[in-house]
Amino acid sequence: MFFNVKTTEEVLEIIQGFNPVEEENIDLSNASGRVLGRDMISPEDLPGFPRSSMDGFAVRAKDTFGASESLPALLELKGEVLMGQIPAVSVESGTAIRISTGGMVPEGADAVVIIEHCHLLDETTLEVMRAASPQEHIIRPGDDFARGAAVLKKGWTLRPQDIGVMAGLGILKTSVHRRPRVAVISTGDEVIPIDRKPKPGEIRDINTYTLVSFCEIEGVSPLPLGLCRDQFDPLRELIERGLREADSVWISGGSSVGTRDMTVKVLKSFPGMELLVHGISVSPGKPTILARVDSKAVFGLPGHTASAMVIAEVFLKPFLGRLAGRNPDPLRDRRFVDAVLGRNIESASGREDYIRVKLVAGEEGWVAEPLFGKSGLISTLVEGDGLVRIRRNEEGLYRGDKVRVMIL
Amino acid sequence: MFFNVKTTEEVLEIIQGFNPVEEENIDLSNASGRVLGRDMISPEDLPGFPRSSMDGFAVRAKDTFGASESLPALLELKGEVLMGQIPAVSVESGTAIRISTGGMVPEGADAVVIIEHCHLLDETTLEVMRAASPQEHIIRPGDDFARGAAVLKKGWTLRPQDIGVMAGLGILKTSVHRRPRVAVISTGDEVIPIDRKPKPGEIRDINTYTLVSFCEIEGVSPLPLGLCRDQFDPLRELIERGLREADSVWISGGSSVGTRDMTVKVLKSFPGMELLVHGISVSPGKPTILARVDSKAVFGLPGHTASAMVIAEVFLKPFLGRLAGRNPDPLRDRRFVDAVLGRNIESASGREDYIRVKLVAGEEGWVAEPLFGKSGLISTLVEGDGLVRIRRNEEGLYRGDKVRVMIL
Repeated sequence: MFFNVKTTEEVLEIIQGFNPVEEENIDLSNASGRVLGRDMISPEDLPGFPRSSMDGFAVRAKDTFGASESLPALLELKGEVLMGQIPAVSVESGTAIRISTGGMVPEGADAVVIIEHCHLLDETTLEVMRAASPQEHIIRPGDDFARGAAVLKKGWTLRPQDIGVMAGLGILKTSVHRRPRVAVISTGDEVIPIDRKPKPGEIRDINTYTLVSFCEIEGVSPLPLGLCRDQFDPLRELIERGLREADSVWISGGSSVGTRDMTVKVLKSFPGMELLVHGISVSPGKPTILARVDSKAVFGLPGHTASAMVIAEVFLKPFLGRLAGRNPDPLRDRRFVDAVLGRNIESASGREDYIRVKLVAGEEGWVAEPLFGKSGLISTLVEGDGLVRIRRNEEGLYRGDKVRVMIL
Repeated sequence: MFFNVKTTEEVLEIIQGFNPVEEENIDLSNASGRVLGRDMISPEDLPGFPRSSMDGFAVRAKDTFGASESLPALLELKGEVLMGQIPAVSVESGTAIRISTGGMVPEGADAVVIIEHCHLLDETTLEVMRAASPQEHIIRPGDDFARGAAVLKKGWTLRPQDIGVMAGLGILKTSVHRRPRVAVISTGDEVIPIDRKPKPGEIRDINTYTLVSFCEIEGVSPLPLGLCRDQFDPLRELIERGLREADSVWISGGSSVGTRDMTVKVLKSFPGMELLVHGISVSPGKPTILARVDSKAVFGLPGHTASAMVIAEVFLKPFLGRLAGRNPDPLRDRRFVDAVLGRNIESASGREDYIRVKLVAGEEGWVAEPLFGKSGLISTLVEGDGLVRIRRNEEGLYRGDKVRVMIL
């Protein structure tokens, strides 16, 4: 039935063979969570002037050498640096100027003594009770970024702090990959729109809603194309539309053999179609199809939502990362929690198993309780906290084994 | 200078004293990532009819008792269940009907034998080579959800699979908390709009961009109110507007003492204002203010972006969760990675320290390298991967210590 069954590693490699979507130039204020299309270089020195990093007094460091609580240095206070302005006076030997955090260090000064180490005897006489070293509490021009320095790498997903730094550098527009668009088609003669009451034998369209939401959460624009019966012409038309309007097409099968066969048959009618994957050696989710049509990825997903969601988590997530131009990021791509397995799990060797588990707080950390049950149930989807992987060469896992749970 | 310094735990508890925003009824297709406003109960049995969970043949289990490869049971094949339809024929003793995954189990059948355990001798004669147990591969009505069963809890954040299950149950509209709105004000005489070239002493408005992006990533609607000089009347007007149009107001201080004092002075002019927190015993981020005005939380944040971001991560994130009506979720609220510390870190006891670290792949896992540097630098924001916490009673951490890194 399946002619081109691949392993997880092979499919993940095939996925990297698709190209990211093109770049666009957008305003910084819209760039949160977007993926940089090119390396970002600092356009200027930051800061552009010497700044104080503390509240205190700008001084000449050598005027404070040897100062201590018992023998403070006495300096003449000559005024205050106003925020946002070039200081009106400069610091000469024996003098100090009051300065706030972020204030511009006046000419002549080469250190800032923090407020806690000073004592004002009267309005113009300052006691300094600690020696300052040269450049102490001063941020020099370019200390943060020198002009031309690398700030962020192409393929990086912009976090709030990255946006802030770009604002600080005066970067008003930035080149990011545009948001990929994914067409979602739901097939199966038994599948009906969710606003209809199912008659016996019918079931509501769970997969469109799940996959559309999955796209939204992953930062991709979904294009739901609706329901399609298991017939050649309507399915071909929808796939054609998806290929025209989106960057990838996901066909979530009805769960029957008929639908799966129909998807392959329709795909074969597209000139130049390459059937890259016809079955993956994972459970659940084996009946997964990946084809390249017009250089776009067309996925045929299993009809069971629980199976489709395993494929989404394991394969569609990295695929969307690739499409979005995102560099793989082991710290942020997935969320893992360490746990101890609550029950034995058997597994057929030769395939990779993903077991849905519920995480329960135990005395020594999380316990992963496998959610068994007939395949085809969807209640395990809401009960499940994550997936435990059993590798291809493992025959199972034992109660008490340490496992890494991929959080869903 | 600070009169009401609180510990982290105290501030986190104070935050829980604010009320979540109200609920609204929205379409299921807009509900991804939203927070349930009430418990969700199954409105019907799911499935509503007996379904096959596999591709195979619907049979009477007792017709297969004792069947084996060497002694298969012989059954008469009477037709096929069409997807989405009530089966036209029923299964009588000695007969079988072909069925696909998701098909309705015909009357008379009480088990499904999977295709791999059967062999078709001719068009009407089926060999069954394995005994089926009653109800095998059949999902009975209500197996997934019985009418009235609890599906999801109030305060739960809707994941793709939750949306899918709701679609399956025919829930077209759902009650969720509306998205909170947060007003963001940036103050400081030295702060200028990002499209202006700073003169000596001036700096671009980093904090508005960082905090607005932080809100977006956290699923909250930001309302940037712009820049404000350190003057009583303009600041009071902006805070008033924020209180009128948003659910919380965040004033990111210029970094100077003057700004911080001004914020408190302005807050004191609001009748009924309660200054709940005036300083937190954390570093960085001590000069943080939290007040209640008109039952809304007003935060005064430190001017240094790096400090403000620590406060955002540690306090504003759980605050937004509370405002959004979200139940605390130890599996998903934060992302942690275990690492080994690359250098000794000192810490003053009596306060909690958050050290920004870069994570480097070592031979035995991640190594957390502290990013030291003058306070006030923003380059550490883009270099940093996460924060390491040093507890109040710890005097530091040693190179080689195991640490849990909060990923940023």
